[in-house]
Amino acid sequence: MLDVIVIGGGPAALSAALNLKIRNKSFLVLGGNEKVTGLMKAPQVDNYLGFKEISGKDLLESFKRHAEGMGIEINQGKAYNILDMGDYFAVNAGSEYYDARSIILATGHGKANYLKGEREYLGKGIGYCATCDGPLYKGKPIAIISENEEGEEEANFLSEICAAVYYLPAYAAQPKLKEGVKLLRERVLSIEGDGSKVNKLVAEQSELQVNAVFIIRNVIPVSQLIEGLEMEEGSIRVNRSMGTSIPGVFACGDCAGKPYQIAKAVGEGSVAALSAVKYLDGKSLE
Amino acid sequence: MLDVIVIGGGPAALSAALNLKIRNKSFLVLGGNEKVTGLMKAPQVDNYLGFKEISGKDLLESFKRHAEGMGIEINQGKAYNILDMGDYFAVNAGSEYYDARSIILATGHGKANYLKGEREYLGKGIGYCATCDGPLYKGKPIAIISENEEGEEEANFLSEICAAVYYLPAYAAQPKLKEGVKLLRERVLSIEGDGSKVNKLVAEQSELQVNAVFIIRNVIPVSQLIEGLEMEEGSIRVNRSMGTSIPGVFACGDCAGKPYQIAKAVGEGSVAALSAVKYLDGKSLE
Repeated sequence: MLDVIVIGGGPAALSAALNLKIRNKSFLVLGGNEKVTGLMKAPQVDNYLGFKEISGKDLLESFKRHAEGMGIEINQGKAYNILDMGDYFAVNAGSEYYDARSIILATGHGKANYLKGEREYLGKGIGYCATCDGPLYKGKPIAIISENEEGEEEANFLSEICAAVYYLPAYAAQPKLKEGVKLLRERVLSIEGDGSKVNKLVAEQSELQVNAVFIIRNVIPVSQLIEGLEMEEGSIRVNRSMGTSIPGVFACGDCAGKPYQIAKAVGEGSVAALSAVKYLDGKSLE
Repeated sequence: MLDVIVIGGGPAALSAALNLKIRNKSFLVLGGNEKVTGLMKAPQVDNYLGFKEISGKDLLESFKRHAEGMGIEINQGKAYNILDMGDYFAVNAGSEYYDARSIILATGHGKANYLKGEREYLGKGIGYCATCDGPLYKGKPIAIISENEEGEEEANFLSEICAAVYYLPAYAAQPKLKEGVKLLRERVLSIEGDGSKVNKLVAEQSELQVNAVFIIRNVIPVSQLIEGLEMEEGSIRVNRSMGTSIPGVFACGDCAGKPYQIAKAVGEGSVAALSAVKYLDGKSLE
């Protein structure tokens, strides 16, 4: 049982990890795919105090060097689901499960551009982790909509299990797919069903009869990560201590609201970590 | 008329200034005496992301280099009072007055260890700026209690105007005082009066008959800087946008509450600046 799991790998997550390390807590950073951090693409950052005219990439490098120099490891795993077990939290990271007494969400600014039908059929044929739920659809036709190359591996894996696998990439690069996977370069219009489960994916030029649709997003909408998390204008509602509506769950950085600034993310990461420490200390006194 | 006056010279103030500069606003940073910034004394800082094992002094140096490199000047002036003029704010910085459409408070963690009688007689013989109010006590006996060497100059100045000047330093260094100033190395117990004005300063071994007492603090209690500022547990009450109870006044860093962390101060400074920019843009549209 860990003290804390930090979900994210950007500035807020690293700042939180730094403070957890200094406070001698056991923790895991589920950093996901670093390529998707928006900071990587910033040509020049001027307003993170202490670094003048630095590229986003170099700034992130110096953040990572600092964290790694303190002995912090960043796990490339991605959190798909967090279950509140009452006394602790269980995090599903695809093929692995981790338990912790508290959670720090630092998932960044996930644009929640839900597909039509996505919210209605989530858990009723729509999922975010093909590896996790795919085997339930053995011998059935399924579709994978993917924002990044991670989806390819999942499609290839499921092509050996499912009757048909349709792959709809939402990125430019040419996917490397096994022969059994059917590539469709079409915009998805909606996911439909009979009210209780998915039966159709409607794309611009095709209608696919499928029993499941997996959506591989760069960032999973944070409100889907954990049940009962109160949101406010698309961001996680937090108080000044970065506490969320769920005791033991803290949030920081872009996922906790505007402005989307590195300095804000770093500052909030440190506050979230110190609040988590306080929460854990309080629990251990119970 | 300036867009913003930033009160403070620490990490929160510099971060706010950085963002105001980038947003092309006109502003003044009243940094006060840099020696009093607590960060200067930190032997090692480990949890400001990007800098590993750096001394507080070196970190502050790199912050200043960044700010100065962006063309930001830090004025050594100290704000004594801020008046809400309805449409703008007037800041009294001793011998100078400045006007601005909004204010960012970044005054740090001022320990409000009020002296006995201080709050009762504030404005009734007790003041924080001897240069400002001293001339009102021409020919009268006064006392100066000072937390730092700034008080010496004020004592020397008033020794030419007042009937008697008592100087009670609350610091170790030997004060450089003119002959007319009476040095007393005693702890102050209380300031007393007749209910409407000060008439006595009681120290450990002396009772001084005085008409005024000037208290020169490293940090003026922020609640005394501006009328009507709502506080919460000794800190300025702020919302997530760093807005205070007074429209157009923002606060950031230690004065806006715990934890007292550099990363938090820097993050909040950037948020306060962006909120001030939004406030100013809204006003200019009116």
